[in-house]
Amino acid sequence: MFGVDDVQNATSAAVTNPPGLGNFKFGKLVIFDDPVTIDKNYLSEPVARAQGFYFYDMKNDYNAWFSYTLVFNSTQHKGTLNIMGADLMMEKTRDLSVVGGTGDFFMSRGIVTFETDTFEGAKYFRVKMDIKLYECY
Amino acid sequence: MFGVDDVQNATSAAVTNPPGLGNFKFGKLVIFDDPVTIDKNYLSEPVARAQGFYFYDMKNDYNAWFSYTLVFNSTQHKGTLNIMGADLMMEKTRDLSVVGGTGDFFMSRGIVTFETDTFEGAKYFRVKMDIKLYECY
Amino acid sequence: MFGVDDVQNATSAAVTNPPGLGNFKFGKLVIFDDPVTIDKNYLSEPVARAQGFYFYDMKNDYNAWFSYTLVFNSTQHKGTLNIMGADLMMEKTRDLSVVGGTGDFFMSRGIVTFETDTFEGAKYFRVKMDIKLYECY
Repeated sequence: MFGVDDVQNATSAAVTNPPGLGNFKFGKLVIFDDPVTIDKNYLSEPVARAQGFYFYDMKNDYNAWFSYTLVFNSTQHKGTLNIMGADLMMEKTRDLSVVGGTGDFFMSRGIVTFETDTFEGAKYFRVKMDIKLYECY
Repeated sequence: MFGVDDVQNATSAAVTNPPGLGNFKFGKLVIFDDPVTIDKNYLSEPVARAQGFYFYDMKNDYNAWFSYTLVFNSTQHKGTLNIMGADLMMEKTRDLSVVGGTGDFFMSRGIVTFETDTFEGAKYFRVKMDIKLYECY
Repeated sequence: MFGVDDVQNATSAAVTNPPGLGNFKFGKLVIFDDPVTIDKNYLSEPVARAQGFYFYDMKNDYNAWFSYTLVFNSTQHKGTLNIMGADLMMEKTRDLSVVGGTGDFFMSRGIVTFETDTFEGAKYFRVKMDIKLYECY
């Protein structure tokens, strides 16, 4: 996701200022509408949008918490997946919960595994999301 | 929901300022405690409160994301339904997920379909919520 | 949880200012990373971290809304539980939803019952969380 300094490319924006609890952005809340692509080139085929928010929540290290919706609107998939959970950034991979779905993903539940793919400071980072659904109707 | 300019009637309030990403309130986060009535007259019989938040999250159109609880406390129903999902405002109807419930709605899951009923600018709007539950104990 | 005035002990911080809707902190949003202990002494054995946020959302009384993750990382339990719901503070006990889980709590759902244990003003309060899981794989 691109940050707000670059309005043309930005797909996210911080809406709070960290209140000064440690040096790892504790309390910074970011709202995003990010493209999700089939692979790690952001010019590749978009498969969904990721719309939601995250914030940093640890005093002595980088750690975050996410809640968002994957919005699919292609010939292959129409519908949404709703996701929430802790992004324990110090772990190589970490699991969040798919807590619901709509459309093609009606009533889905599952797990999303995050793996940081690149972290170029605050301006751009990229996360690999590996989604496994265990309940569908 | 009524906005904060009208403190007497207000049932919601913005708590962040949009950071200037486009002209569609990207980043405005609103916390609400709204009455839910049986029909579209806000003086009609209240059936629940809707307590939670939403924010706008698109740069080039109105689009929002909700997470909230419907709190029922009447002779008919006592309990809560917990809901989250994208409010794709450009669609005539859009589905969010009921991800859990308590009390009379113990362990429920389902779908809430939003349909904008009236949108009188930022000060007052009304959304029709059609709830379907698919899992109850 | 300790508030931000006491940076050394603080495990939470408000990131918005209440916009002035009533006298019960409507709109105050707090991000936290709190220790969860086996009993009500905060020096007792820690069993998890609670990472997430809450906000106050009522004009004429204290009332809150929570969404957070319990992060377990001990010899007994590794994994997370994702939780959301209304914290109806005027009730002696109130139920929130466990909407998903990971690791040892893979795909869990259930109920968390909150009971206020102590409320020493804004600086420190303690909530008893009684967790019941009804779905595990």
